[in-house]
Amino acid sequence: MDSEDKLVERIARSMSEFISSSKPIGRSSSILELGVGDDSAVVRPGAGHDWTLSSDAFLEGVHFLGDVHPADSVGYKALVRAASDLAAMGATPRFFLMTLAIPMIRTGAWLNRFLQGMKRAARMLDIRLVGGDTTKFPLVMASMTVIGEVARGTEIRRGGARPGDLIYVTGTLGAAELGLELVKQGHLRRKNLQKWIRPHLYPRTRIQLGAWLARKRLATSMMDLSDGLSTDLPRLCKASGVGARLRSKDIPQLDIAKIPRGPTRNQRFDALAMALHGGEDYELLFTVPARHLKKMQRAPGFRALRAIGIITADRSILLENSDGTLSRLRSRGWDPFRKGRRKRG
Amino acid sequence: MDSEDKLVERIARSMSEFISSSKPIGRSSSILELGVGDDSAVVRPGAGHDWTLSSDAFLEGVHFLGDVHPADSVGYKALVRAASDLAAMGATPRFFLMTLAIPMIRTGAWLNRFLQGMKRAARMLDIRLVGGDTTKFPLVMASMTVIGEVARGTEIRRGGARPGDLIYVTGTLGAAELGLELVKQGHLRRKNLQKWIRPHLYPRTRIQLGAWLARKRLATSMMDLSDGLSTDLPRLCKASGVGARLRSKDIPQLDIAKIPRGPTRNQRFDALAMALHGGEDYELLFTVPARHLKKMQRAPGFRALRAIGIITADRSILLENSDGTLSRLRSRGWDPFRKGRRKRG
Repeated sequence: MDSEDKLVERIARSMSEFISSSKPIGRSSSILELGVGDDSAVVRPGAGHDWTLSSDAFLEGVHFLGDVHPADSVGYKALVRAASDLAAMGATPRFFLMTLAIPMIRTGAWLNRFLQGMKRAARMLDIRLVGGDTTKFPLVMASMTVIGEVARGTEIRRGGARPGDLIYVTGTLGAAELGLELVKQGHLRRKNLQKWIRPHLYPRTRIQLGAWLARKRLATSMMDLSDGLSTDLPRLCKASGVGARLRSKDIPQLDIAKIPRGPTRNQRFDALAMALHGGEDYELLFTVPARHLKKMQRAPGFRALRAIGIITADRSILLENSDGTLSRLRSRGWDPFRKGRRKRG
Repeated sequence: MDSEDKLVERIARSMSEFISSSKPIGRSSSILELGVGDDSAVVRPGAGHDWTLSSDAFLEGVHFLGDVHPADSVGYKALVRAASDLAAMGATPRFFLMTLAIPMIRTGAWLNRFLQGMKRAARMLDIRLVGGDTTKFPLVMASMTVIGEVARGTEIRRGGARPGDLIYVTGTLGAAELGLELVKQGHLRRKNLQKWIRPHLYPRTRIQLGAWLARKRLATSMMDLSDGLSTDLPRLCKASGVGARLRSKDIPQLDIAKIPRGPTRNQRFDALAMALHGGEDYELLFTVPARHLKKMQRAPGFRALRAIGIITADRSILLENSDGTLSRLRSRGWDPFRKGRRKRG
């Protein structure tokens, strides 16, 4: 047997609890007929369900820094980042495939920790590894394809927002951006900052909430916040042919004053700017007709929900400032191809 | 709109004929409900079919040389290499997702040509682009996930070969290896060598034959030849718990004498070594019980088929040389992680 086969076997062994076969997956009726090890995986789709498919790359020097970020965070985020696109449709993750390219020097302990992180994510997501490809490469590159299920015709798209719909987000926006800042400043190992760094290293996903919104048919549109509210909201609005009006005071922001004093004491973090433009929160952004307001109280994780504004017929994206004035919200989220972009590591 | 969105839109525009929506795909009953542009694609699986899934990366410096290989060959091969894994199951390709990472300087004409090549492959495969991800990166990296369909329970796995089964391959083995050699020697543009270079730049796939074998339930095992016969056959044998005995004279080899004289005249290409160890042919390797020999004459592309040996109960892989002696066949195909590997560019 050659060494690439051996590496694939090592990955398969490490991931064995997530390489199931011939058993129904979760509450799904879909069955994994044949998993890792042949030319392709074979899956038998469950009746009455549609499939959602998404791919995301996670690249050294772009999405993480090889010499800074812990390998288990890299493995965790590579999978969570992709699965977040399923949550954004209201789908439930079922299967994933991974192409992994790594330098020879990372095939030892680094790879083990990477797989530990990926397993942590796979456990959280209840998702199975069904295939992939492994190659040597000068930089680490992980590309994940995730496959989810949704009851036929219930997926929540970006294009359904209507004027008057309430705009919701989950969680605290800007938390991943703050974590990244702290890591860039060398505070990765500082104990009293772990709580603030965690959202950057181990973002959660909102699978349950997304699936609930789809099942109850409450949301008219939805997406996940990967590039920042100021970049992602215009995408949702464009797809729906609408605009939006946000209230800055309602946007869930970091409580900057609570960050421990110490190396960060002289920093002036702008909580609102981070909430508007910070990327990688993987929180959900969605719209709900006002008549469903009461039903929303039964949402899983209701306390993590915040109504931050309203959809408008006018196509502009406006922000109501704390002093009552209105300003146009400019996209300042992450874009690797834009010149003069904000640095994201 | 930001520039990454623009790049995605450019790819979508270029690929528009392969981004169909809400129409049955080919002869399939599966329907693409929602394609590129939302968080995930949504597909409605056809009744009575299983799905096959596979992912493959295509990396600069590993699978192609950025300054040597034509961009359209890169786009073509990136997709064909992945789809070959579907052919290897007897499945028919339906959908694919692409994560593409490229340096800024390749986002212009290079990307256009890359997409032209990918379209050529997509047309040949009758496959639709349903999602992906685009990022800036120092090296070109394309990761393709392909999804195919097969009538329920008819996929052809690696593990079904039985002693006495005939071993078949398609095409001429080693053709891609020769093409690579010629390209590495700087003959990419030489007109009278194009015919010999083509199998390296634009390998075909054997989708129709694979699907026919599955439909007729004639093959007991199958895989595609990506790393060379001497590496891939042991994989099939291991999965089946069997061995094999090949006849070297029956292995379809290049007719070296026909390569035009000129810059190559002093080369001594070893046709048998290339056929045994050359990678990237993407031909099919499969086994058929001897009782089906006659039925095989009705196979699509029957003339491209060759019976090269027989499956044995003894687990060794033996080669019957032209002088009648037997030798053990050693794996010398491509493996990026093996030390002292044969150079493949």
